[in-house]
Amino acid sequence: MPAPRVVSEGCVARLSLYVRELTRLQKTRAPFVSSRRLAQQLGLTDAQVRRDLSTFGQFGTSGRGYEVRRLHERLTGILGIAGHQWHVALAGVGNLGSALLAYRGFQERGFLFRVAVDADPRKVGTLVQGLSVASPQQLPELVKKARIHIGMITVPVEAAQEVCNQFLQAGVRAIVNFAPVHLEVPPGVWLRVVDLASELETLAYYLAHHGKAGKAS
Amino acid sequence: MPAPRVVSEGCVARLSLYVRELTRLQKTRAPFVSSRRLAQQLGLTDAQVRRDLSTFGQFGTSGRGYEVRRLHERLTGILGIAGHQWHVALAGVGNLGSALLAYRGFQERGFLFRVAVDADPRKVGTLVQGLSVASPQQLPELVKKARIHIGMITVPVEAAQEVCNQFLQAGVRAIVNFAPVHLEVPPGVWLRVVDLASELETLAYYLAHHGKAGKAS
Repeated sequence: MPAPRVVSEGCVARLSLYVRELTRLQKTRAPFVSSRRLAQQLGLTDAQVRRDLSTFGQFGTSGRGYEVRRLHERLTGILGIAGHQWHVALAGVGNLGSALLAYRGFQERGFLFRVAVDADPRKVGTLVQGLSVASPQQLPELVKKARIHIGMITVPVEAAQEVCNQFLQAGVRAIVNFAPVHLEVPPGVWLRVVDLASELETLAYYLAHHGKAGKAS
Repeated sequence: MPAPRVVSEGCVARLSLYVRELTRLQKTRAPFVSSRRLAQQLGLTDAQVRRDLSTFGQFGTSGRGYEVRRLHERLTGILGIAGHQWHVALAGVGNLGSALLAYRGFQERGFLFRVAVDADPRKVGTLVQGLSVASPQQLPELVKKARIHIGMITVPVEAAQEVCNQFLQAGVRAIVNFAPVHLEVPPGVWLRVVDLASELETLAYYLAHHGKAGKAS
């Protein structure tokens, strides 16, 4: 099934949420789910859910809602995670990097760490979560050998752009950056940014302003 | 300075990015910065930066751009992080929780972990990053004593809603949830969600569709 022509970033992110919820529903053996129930479970509006899902095709069965198994199958297919293993390389085996290597949530959703590098010679050669930490110089060779799809950056701010460049030179086209600094990437590369402190700052803003509270995300 | 009436969530999140970049500029002792330079550094458009900053007041000096020190001062004030220490309680001292406790980026930006709880009796009483892990039963007392502003949830999916309820009952009004599950919170509570696997799934979507690539965030 070809991808629809124009899909907003927000819609792609919600697609991942729908799959998460449908996976949960499959475990409870629920055969159908309404757009209303999906919306409630995910904190979205009914209209949003219907609009998103209609972007990807006709899934609804009038009166009974969506068929859980079929919708799950189609959406995982569209998302590109159906039966697919994505290979991830992590740069920066510090506290955060080590935790991400150990985080089971990635593997459960089809993302496997195959490579870990760190610039600290004392870490090179040590085992972290069953992976032998390599030096960044080995990145081009390891990326190729392990067929890496996604590079994850958890190095300090000062080193982030250099590590990013190393990933790009090694042929990686998708990057998740946890270092709180803006990275320059050329066209043709996908970049996601996770700034953990920024999440707290957003909450701080709402707390500081005692405004009418609600869901901040 | 009173908060402007209507500020979008996106704008609040970008405010945090402006402060991050201005902090960096202050260290380089740059006296002025143009909206264009700020935009380049943060991957935004010039117009976006000018629109955001004009939401919060008149900061520009014609011809020379923004005064770095003054803009930094005002924006940190607006964000609610100027000279303010925010107290954070973490629930779930697993791999991810332990890493977040150790992550220096929070402290650097004014967020201090004061409380950590875990349901595992073997962990209660152990020291993690200088904090003695408590049991969830102690949460109400500890939240009050440590004047906790923000609750951080890093427990498994099955326990997330219960821990969230415990935070709310203890009087916490701002929650960051790392468990990949939707949480129900009443009006008057701010909730941020960080779904790490979802970030990778978004990249997987773009990789799977070989579309015209670019910045995915």
